[in-house]
Formats: sequence, C-alpha cells, structure tokens
Amino acid sequence: MTAIRDDVRAEVRRLQAEVAQLHAELTRYGLVIWTAGNVSARVPGADLFVIKPSGVSYDDLTPDAIVVCDLDGGLVEGDRAPSSDTAAHAYVYRHLPEVGGVVHTHSTYATAWAARGEPIPCVLTMAADEFGGEVPIGPFALIGDDSIGQGIVETLARSRSKAVLMQNHGPFTVGTDARSAVKAAVMVEDVARTVHVARQLGEPLPIAQHHVDSLHDRYQNVYGRTGPQARTATQGAPR
Amino acid sequence: MTAIRDDVRAEVRRLQAEVAQLHAELTRYGLVIWTAGNVSARVPGADLFVIKPSGVSYDDLTPDAIVVCDLDGGLVEGDRAPSSDTAAHAYVYRHLPEVGGVVHTHSTYATAWAARGEPIPCVLTMAADEFGGEVPIGPFALIGDDSIGQGIVETLARSRSKAVLMQNHGPFTVGTDARSAVKAAVMVEDVARTVHVARQLGEPLPIAQHHVDSLHDRYQNVYGRTGPQARTATQGAPR
Amino acid sequence: MTAIRDDVRAEVRRLQAEVAQLHAELTRYGLVIWTAGNVSARVPGADLFVIKPSGVSYDDLTPDAIVVCDLDGGLVEGDRAPSSDTAAHAYVYRHLPEVGGVVHTHSTYATAWAARGEPIPCVLTMAADEFGGEVPIGPFALIGDDSIGQGIVETLARSRSKAVLMQNHGPFTVGTDARSAVKAAVMVEDVARTVHVARQLGEPLPIAQHHVDSLHDRYQNVYGRTGPQARTATQGAPR
Amino acid sequence: MTAIRDDVRAEVRRLQAEVAQLHAELTRYGLVIWTAGNVSARVPGADLFVIKPSGVSYDDLTPDAIVVCDLDGGLVEGDRAPSSDTAAHAYVYRHLPEVGGVVHTHSTYATAWAARGEPIPCVLTMAADEFGGEVPIGPFALIGDDSIGQGIVETLARSRSKAVLMQNHGPFTVGTDARSAVKAAVMVEDVARTVHVARQLGEPLPIAQHHVDSLHDRYQNVYGRTGPQARTATQGAPR
Repeated sequence: MTAIRDDVRAEVRRLQAEVAQLHAELTRYGLVIWTAGNVSARVPGADLFVIKPSGVSYDDLTPDAIVVCDLDGGLVEGDRAPSSDTAAHAYVYRHLPEVGGVVHTHSTYATAWAARGEPIPCVLTMAADEFGGEVPIGPFALIGDDSIGQGIVETLARSRSKAVLMQNHGPFTVGTDARSAVKAAVMVEDVARTVHVARQLGEPLPIAQHHVDSLHDRYQNVYGRTGPQARTATQGAPR
Repeated sequence: MTAIRDDVRAEVRRLQAEVAQLHAELTRYGLVIWTAGNVSARVPGADLFVIKPSGVSYDDLTPDAIVVCDLDGGLVEGDRAPSSDTAAHAYVYRHLPEVGGVVHTHSTYATAWAARGEPIPCVLTMAADEFGGEVPIGPFALIGDDSIGQGIVETLARSRSKAVLMQNHGPFTVGTDARSAVKAAVMVEDVARTVHVARQLGEPLPIAQHHVDSLHDRYQNVYGRTGPQARTATQGAPR
Repeated sequence: MTAIRDDVRAEVRRLQAEVAQLHAELTRYGLVIWTAGNVSARVPGADLFVIKPSGVSYDDLTPDAIVVCDLDGGLVEGDRAPSSDTAAHAYVYRHLPEVGGVVHTHSTYATAWAARGEPIPCVLTMAADEFGGEVPIGPFALIGDDSIGQGIVETLARSRSKAVLMQNHGPFTVGTDARSAVKAAVMVEDVARTVHVARQLGEPLPIAQHHVDSLHDRYQNVYGRTGPQARTATQGAPR
Repeated sequence: MTAIRDDVRAEVRRLQAEVAQLHAELTRYGLVIWTAGNVSARVPGADLFVIKPSGVSYDDLTPDAIVVCDLDGGLVEGDRAPSSDTAAHAYVYRHLPEVGGVVHTHSTYATAWAARGEPIPCVLTMAADEFGGEVPIGPFALIGDDSIGQGIVETLARSRSKAVLMQNHGPFTVGTDARSAVKAAVMVEDVARTVHVARQLGEPLPIAQHHVDSLHDRYQNVYGRTGPQARTATQGAPR
C-alpha cells in the first residue's frame, strides 16, 4: 500500500487545509446542498491527491477530515471513506498530468443544461474569458467504474473549456490547482444561469469566433498563470 | 392520558434537541418562510413522537419548545399546541412503522409541481439515487382530519420515493429518522428546481429505467442505512 | 401641532422598537433592496403611527430612528423626514380603523404580477389560508397625493386579501398589527413566486371556491386573532 | 509620474475606506461572484480616482488594498495592479466631469438583457424614479483599449439612465459619488430581474411617458442631490 513520503508530508497538510477551506466557496455560492459536492487537489511530486470524505457535512470539514488517496482512488490516509466520486477524480489525475485540482457539484443551472444534454453557448464575454467557447456536454455514465472519469477526460480533450457537464448528472471542473478548479465551478454555474435567463426571453446575440479567441487568449495570458502567489490569503483569482 | 415512561425520557430529550436543530436546515436551504414548515421524529420503543409547536418562529426553537405527542396527535407534554400539521404526521407514524421522521414544507419549486398536480420526472442521477424514480403527487386534501395523512400514506405505498407532493399544497417527506427525512426535503426541492429549470428551455433527456434502478439500488445499499453513527455531530448524510 | 400624550409615550417606545426590528424580516426574506421598503404601526388610543424614516439603511434602523407621525402624515417627532410613502400609510390608517400595521415593498415576484396588472390566482392552500382568494390589483397611482392610499383602501374593500398589488408599483399589506402586516408581506411574495413558477410550465389546478372558503375560515378563526401574546419574543405568527 | 498632492491625501484615504466598504454591497445583493466586479471613486479636486485592485477577493478588500490611478488609468499608488476594467473607468472620468463614481458588475439579470442586446423597458415606478426611462444597451466592445469606455459614454449621452448594459458583457453604472453608482448597480439588477419575471408570463403594462417624466423629476429633485450628509454612517440613499 502506498504511504505518504516524508518529503511531501508538509505539502499534504497544506493541501488538506486549502481543500477544507475551499469547500466553503461551494456553499457560499449555493453550488451544493447537503454533502453533494467535492473538491480535490493533486499532491505535486507524488502519486497522491487529497479529497473530501464521504458523508461529512460542510460545517464539519476540518483539514484533518480531508482524506489522502492514491491515483487509483485507494485510501492512503484518513478516518473515513473518500467521496463516492473519488474514482472520477482519480481517473482525471491519472490521464491529465497538467490538472492539479478537480471539483464536482450538482449546481442548479449547470445541471439543468446537463439534463437536456445541451452545451452552453458562448454568448458572454466572461464565458469567452474563462471557457474559451461553449461549455461541452459529456456522456451519460454510471457511477461505480471509470465511465465518468473517461467521459470527463474525452470531453475536455476536444474543448478549451475547464468545465464539462456530464449528461443528466452535473458539472465537473478542472484547474491547475484546486482554487482554479473551484473558480471554474463558480463561473460555470454563473454562466449557465445568465445564459439560461437570457434565453428565456429570446435569443442571445452571438459573439464572433475571433472575438471569443481574442478574449480567451488575453485572459489566459494575463491571468491564466497560477503559481505560489495565487495561494496567499490575500489573493484570489483575477479580474 | 399517555405519559412519557422513564426509560424513554433520555431519548425524548435527545430527539427534542435533534429536531430543534434540524429546523435550522430548513431555513438554511430556504425551504420555509415565517413558521410554515415542521419536522417530527418518532420516539423508538414508545407510541410517541416529538414535533415543532404551532406558531413559534425558527429563531426561538429551543429543545424545550419541541412538544411531545401520542400517535393520535394528542399533546403529551409541552407548553404550546403542537403544529397544525400534527394530525398528518401522526397518521404517517401509525401506518408506516418503518418511518422514524417526517418533514413538511411549502418549498417553492416542489410546491409549484404540486400546484400543477404533475409528478417530477426522474431525469437526474441524484433523483434516481434519492427517490428511485419520479416524485409522485398526492391527492388534494383539506386540513382538519386524516385526509392529508391518508393521502401521504397511500401515495408512498405505490412508489419508491420518500417524498410526496400533496396537490395544491406542498411536499411531505419521510425517512428512517428525522435527519433522513430532512435530507429528503432538501433533495426534493433541489430536484424540483433543477428539473423545472431544465424544462424551461426544452425537454430533459430521459434516463433508462434500468439505469434508474441500478443507481437507486447502489445508493440505498451503500448509503441508505441509517443508524446511531449517522447522528454524530461530524456526520451528515452521504455523498 | 400634535404632541405625544404622556399616557401613550411608553407604547410609542415599544412600537418604535418593534418596527425597527421588523424591518429585519424584510431583509431576511429578500423583500427589499437598499432602503426601498417600509413598515409602520398605529399607536393604539392616539391618532398617531410610527414609520421608517426616509433614506436610512436597514443596518442603521435603531428604535430612535423610527419617526412618529399624525394621521395626516405630518411629522410629530423624529430627527429625519418620514418615509416618502408616509402619505399612503396615513391614508390607510385614517380610513381603515381595524388596521394596526402597514407594509410596503417592491418584492420581485409580487411586483412582477403588479407590472402585468394581473391578480395572483388562489391555487395554493397557503394562499387560501392567508388571503382567502386571489390577491387583487390596485390602480396605477402617482406618489405625491392621496392616490396611492385611496387605491389601496378601495381595493381592499372588495376583497378578503390583506395584500394589494399596486399596478406597475408593488405590494402593500395590512394587518391588525405591524407583525401581521409583515407576515402578509412575506407570504404575498412567497405565493407570488410559487404561483409564478407553477405557471411557467403549465396551468395550476384550481381550488374549488368552497374549499378556499373553508381553508380561510379555519385559518382565520384558529390563528387570525392577534393580541398582546402575539408580540412576545418567543412567538411568531402561527402555522 | 503623477503623485498624490498633500492637500488631497486625507480625501484619498477617506475614499479608499468608502470604496473598500462599498464592495460589500455588491456581495450583499449577489451582484458579483469571485472577484468579478469593481467600484471606483473620483478624487475631487485632483485628476485621480481610487479603484479595486485586480484579483483580490472581496473578503480581503481593506482600504489599503484600494489603489490610486490617474485619469489615464495609470497606477499612482498601490501594491497591486488596478482592476482590469480600469481603462473603462478612467475614460468615463475623463469625459464626464459630473461623474464621481463608477461601478461594473456581471449581475445575472442585467447581463441577460445585455446578452440579448435588449434595453429594459420602463414598466415599474421604481425604474422611472431611478432611471427615468428604459435602461439602454451599449455596443459590443473588447477589453484592452478605450472601446468600452467610449461605448459607455456615448450611450449615457443619449439617455437619462445612470446605467448602461454593455452588449454580451454586463452593466456599468455611474453616479455623483461612488455610493450613488453602487445604488444604481443594485437598482439596475433589481429592475432587470423584476421586469424579466413580469415578461415571462405576459406583457407588462406600459407607463405613460408623462408619468415616467413626473416620477423621475420628483425623485431626482427630492432625492437626487447627494452631498456630504449622504456619506454619514447612518444615512443611505433615499426612499
């Protein structure tokens, strides 16, 4: 069984604290109810990630409660079972080395697009900034094996989006670190809701593809780099 | 008149505290306004249940304020009259011995489906998990006798759902204990809202019945068991 | 100029505290933004009422900030001008002696029905309980004279409802005291929102008139009486 | 490089504190997510304004974090880069000398009208009060040069509105000071939402132009004046 190497122990502790605290962003923006949403973070330099345990309410998510898993989703350290969505997170980390954080929610508006199997069109400048085009739909997949993880990875492969809406299920988002994946989860719900509302009374005006490209390029070049400084207490994501 | 036996006195106290605190979940998720929603819990091993008193605001719901009733809905102990919905709770406890908790709200989206008399179709994996199919409609029934309780029990009898939407009225949910009934009340509003939003712009994609069955079986087998450990401070409902 | 008689001074102080605190219910339920909503209470036994001052934010509404007016809307005591809606409140108190409290908001869903000039049909049992039928529309009226007050009084005269939706403007509610008028303001927005949501996907099922009557009679007889005991800290409105 | 003159130093400090605190109104009313919205205030008597820095979360917005810029948008003082929307704010201050505050958000309903490129019709008395007519649409414009600022200024020039909805982007609002621009940002979202909801089930009734004029004139004359007294702790904007 995998153990936690001494040289990554401090980093594991830091990520447990960060992931515990990032779940508060999910409740702040109303993206989750009860215990139905989870954040994970890859441990750099080790085949490990940290993730929310199963069945623990957000009020009780201390750093100690966050469990450590290997990249097959097996529990390495922790008092409780990992989230029931752990296999999907693990699959993403195994197949997308540039991903440092994964988030899953059932946020209302993103899940509504997912229920219709309809991608969210890119008709807002903030959607062009963050997602670089439409937010794509992933396949219908049952929990219990690698189907969900595979659906996420294949869908992300043919898109610039950091978010995928799994059909009839809900959004998964990725980022270079957990904070950036949480930001994408917040943004995908906001974009899903605003475009939904716009569509209720007519057709939103399209944004020309070259404008989408130029907005996305600018945003990713100016703001898209994340690094140690993005993790300090006084700095959030840009804009 | 029924009295509280000495050997269940401690359990009654525990349940009063739990039920008082669970009402905070109804306000947290915006399921209730003013004083219009109530939680009850059966006292195991006694023909009693505890329930919210009538006309007390959620800010003032101390454990002492929660009243004790017999299974005919008569007041056994408490300074105030029991909730005006007590007869419906009592009927459910009399006829469904496996039910340990009952919740009633007028939450917006669930009540909107109830106003149209339209069951909520099962087009989300989380709905398949929690309700095992569509959320059914119960009959129109007036307050004042056993009509509402009878409508709830008859509707639940022909469904796997823990929630029933009483026509023109609102949702009632049941569970093996009060916490699980509250979870169902939170989930039914979330499912009602998400499916509503999905339907506003088109038709949600159906989930094949065998997939609904397999999701429900898995969720109930892995997570559906509730017991003493589900009541500790650090554990909520699963996922 | 009217002065405050010594024998009602204590009651004025009590009502200033109550009205200051009741504004927190308007913000709690999201019925108001900025400073756009107000509560008033009649001083029993005197031709006076207390009301929110103009332009004071809800965070700063201390009992001392609540001003005292005569029944023509003239300022009797207070450091600031009374609410710009004072003339409408005063008109209601002059013409409806049984009214002890008045509330005005621009709450979203109630105002949306008002913008279409469409009464809210009575398709929910809680609407039958509280309003005894549809919530009626009052005329379009400009601020600045008695037009708004007159529109409220004339509309209430031909309805059992405690709420009237002034066309293109927003809801006014009344009650036997300020707390009961605030409850009606909370309920009218909830009913407006739930019926709106129900209507978005089809037609709500009607409730037969004799059922509406019986629900309303029961609710008003059991719960409709307000008195000193309704004003204690631990008691809200019933249900 | 521009420096801060000693005689405006105290005013700069006051405005940094005010602007830091006013961002809390954006989160209170749910107008912003993550770090996506910003408030600025002109420094009277100097060619300077203060504005939110880029990429700082609202929880961390102390007065010290608010940066000082010249009217070309260049950083004059501050530890971080100014908001990425600074060029638009600067353009407005250069071209509209009566403007003392500017606010930008992506608030949901206002942005939805912007996505369709459809002005918000004036069918509510509160919209007539605050905006004096419909809320106009500004052109589609890319970030990075003066296009956005130019679009705002040209659109405001042909309207009485303090708000402009930039196409596919979101609302910008102005005021005689920062507080009044924040009020307009709160109001434009409220009006956008209420008119949206009204339109979902039919056509709102129009308000005759002479009534719009008279409501606007009255409101601006009675309440439209802002001055030192509008900045005290106990006074908000009127109504």
